[in-house]
Amino acid sequence: MQRHANPIAPPGSLVATYRVRSTAAEIEARATAIAVEQSIEMPVAAVTSAFVRDAIIGKVLAVRDCGAGIFEARIGLSVETVGRDAGQLLNMLFGNSSIQDDVTLWDFEVPETLLQTFGGPRHGLPGLRERVGAEGRALTASALKPQGIPSAELAALAGRLAAGGLDYIKDDHGLADQAYSPFAERVPLIAKAVRAANPATRYLPNICGTLEQMRTQLGVVRDCGLDTVLIAPMITGASAFQAVVAAHPDIAFITHPALAGASRIAPPAHFGKLFRLFGADGVVYPNFGGRFSYSPETCRAVGGVGMADWGGLKPTVPIPAGGMTTERVTEMLDFYGADVMLLIGGGLLSAGADLTNATARFVKAVQSYRYT
Amino acid sequence: MQRHANPIAPPGSLVATYRVRSTAAEIEARATAIAVEQSIEMPVAAVTSAFVRDAIIGKVLAVRDCGAGIFEARIGLSVETVGRDAGQLLNMLFGNSSIQDDVTLWDFEVPETLLQTFGGPRHGLPGLRERVGAEGRALTASALKPQGIPSAELAALAGRLAAGGLDYIKDDHGLADQAYSPFAERVPLIAKAVRAANPATRYLPNICGTLEQMRTQLGVVRDCGLDTVLIAPMITGASAFQAVVAAHPDIAFITHPALAGASRIAPPAHFGKLFRLFGADGVVYPNFGGRFSYSPETCRAVGGVGMADWGGLKPTVPIPAGGMTTERVTEMLDFYGADVMLLIGGGLLSAGADLTNATARFVKAVQSYRYT
Repeated sequence: MQRHANPIAPPGSLVATYRVRSTAAEIEARATAIAVEQSIEMPVAAVTSAFVRDAIIGKVLAVRDCGAGIFEARIGLSVETVGRDAGQLLNMLFGNSSIQDDVTLWDFEVPETLLQTFGGPRHGLPGLRERVGAEGRALTASALKPQGIPSAELAALAGRLAAGGLDYIKDDHGLADQAYSPFAERVPLIAKAVRAANPATRYLPNICGTLEQMRTQLGVVRDCGLDTVLIAPMITGASAFQAVVAAHPDIAFITHPALAGASRIAPPAHFGKLFRLFGADGVVYPNFGGRFSYSPETCRAVGGVGMADWGGLKPTVPIPAGGMTTERVTEMLDFYGADVMLLIGGGLLSAGADLTNATARFVKAVQSYRYT
Repeated sequence: MQRHANPIAPPGSLVATYRVRSTAAEIEARATAIAVEQSIEMPVAAVTSAFVRDAIIGKVLAVRDCGAGIFEARIGLSVETVGRDAGQLLNMLFGNSSIQDDVTLWDFEVPETLLQTFGGPRHGLPGLRERVGAEGRALTASALKPQGIPSAELAALAGRLAAGGLDYIKDDHGLADQAYSPFAERVPLIAKAVRAANPATRYLPNICGTLEQMRTQLGVVRDCGLDTVLIAPMITGASAFQAVVAAHPDIAFITHPALAGASRIAPPAHFGKLFRLFGADGVVYPNFGGRFSYSPETCRAVGGVGMADWGGLKPTVPIPAGGMTTERVTEMLDFYGADVMLLIGGGLLSAGADLTNATARFVKAVQSYRYT
């Protein structure tokens, strides 16, 4: 994976970059309107406070023609408007502008202080590698499905996947706290089955609901001796994600993109930066060539941005998923290199009775690849 | 406002309607793929459980050509996949499909049991009218801005708005817990100023952050004798919204649409149904002819769906906002009728020293309109 460095905003400021459908004649006015929308949301002429005028109102820093009727506007915002809350950062970056259907949040920069406030991944790629003793190679993962089967059957399935030698097995993001497999029943059974089948495999339960419910779930996770979980921050809310990360520094968090939407927040900014900033050790996102429409360039950028130097934050592991197969492992590793977690869900489950062997073939393909 | 009734799903089921960009040749396969994506997210052939096949896998109920390359797919899902969690309902309706950029969540239907689980508005239009003694007319509202000025100045501004006779004054959704106007300092000062200027005016603080932080904020709200708040559920997370509504049945909740645009849910379904279902007594959304791109038809549909009969749920008040002015009051009331809250923010603040008089003119225009 190509390394670069994510730019850091000057002290006190926040920089949001939007892509806007516009004409050359209108873009300056549009950019100014977005700067106002994302800061004071009222007529500038009616502002009487010098502090608000100088420090709070968004400022258009630059406008650039990207061609094809798309313009890029870099807008400076005040970091004081964010405080210390992840939800409020999302609100300041894209709260109202998300409702304007010709505006995309393309990128953002935060100052050192916000990097420290949120802290980023507590474990990141090195931590996720260390947990499973996988130095210098890509990580392997699968997903427990389908929802609807009882906890004991999920546990049996997890055991067969673990026996294939996977590094990580995550709950399907649809597994919540349903009557057919309640969290408090499912997680201990699966953890036990995975440990029995392969002590080296880590099982990631999906935590969800309110902060309070997630706290209870994390209690179950700890009681089972687990140390890695799955979370969908756009569903739980970014603030709740921030809170569980801060309260559980020894747990690694892998994010699921559910409800993250398509293309309104650019995927590299969304997964590689926002989720990483808030503490994602790994980020699941749709791979190219699967069931979703991300391009190879977008996928490369998610990984590149998420792994880039960023004021000392740990790198977050790109986890491309969605319609992946063992046949694509070499192509994926040629593309992503070693700094990746490959996730095959349905593609393994399709093997039916041959699940453990199919899993072992996937694991072997990843382990025997010649990393350069 | 034209009354109709929102359809209710049969017991045990959930119906999601998606609009999909497709061809006639491909739509059946696309619809089936969405049904799988939103339920088991794995190859159907690999499912061995009869229960999962019969009850959990999404079923395509109908496909309809809407013209212009857009098709509508009605998909039946199992209500058991939702449990009792608002976040999980969003996940089941649109978790993964939100990432497919040619799919929109157009509408949904839930069974009686989910209406009871979530409960909808605890006060709704009747309660918001009763709070301010406004029978048979539209309600009036404004917003406190800009963020960045100290609490005492916000309080002075609120007093001048209240003196104009408004029914409701809400915090700007950008007002969080920033250092320049912390929640615990700002809210008591503003509540006092509003009460002193006009005891009939209700002040709505903006609650935000984690469930725990919102609980603390609601304590401040109660200590100040307030009974109505603003919340942005797409930022706080739907589960946290559900939790504060359930825990505070005497408080009325008005929702802000911040970040709602990022995931492409049709506004009538999003504000008129989802937010209402979770407990929104009133829903702020961008009015047509302002700074946003909603059409008159979309705005009418948000109001119509939000006010429609729905298994006994209270109606949620449509609150069109964004670039509104007093000059448009007659047009707005001709369009929406009496069952609306008109919100003018910046348009009043532009009056500067004349703020109270400008507010009084807005209030008088709404009160003196001849409702039929």
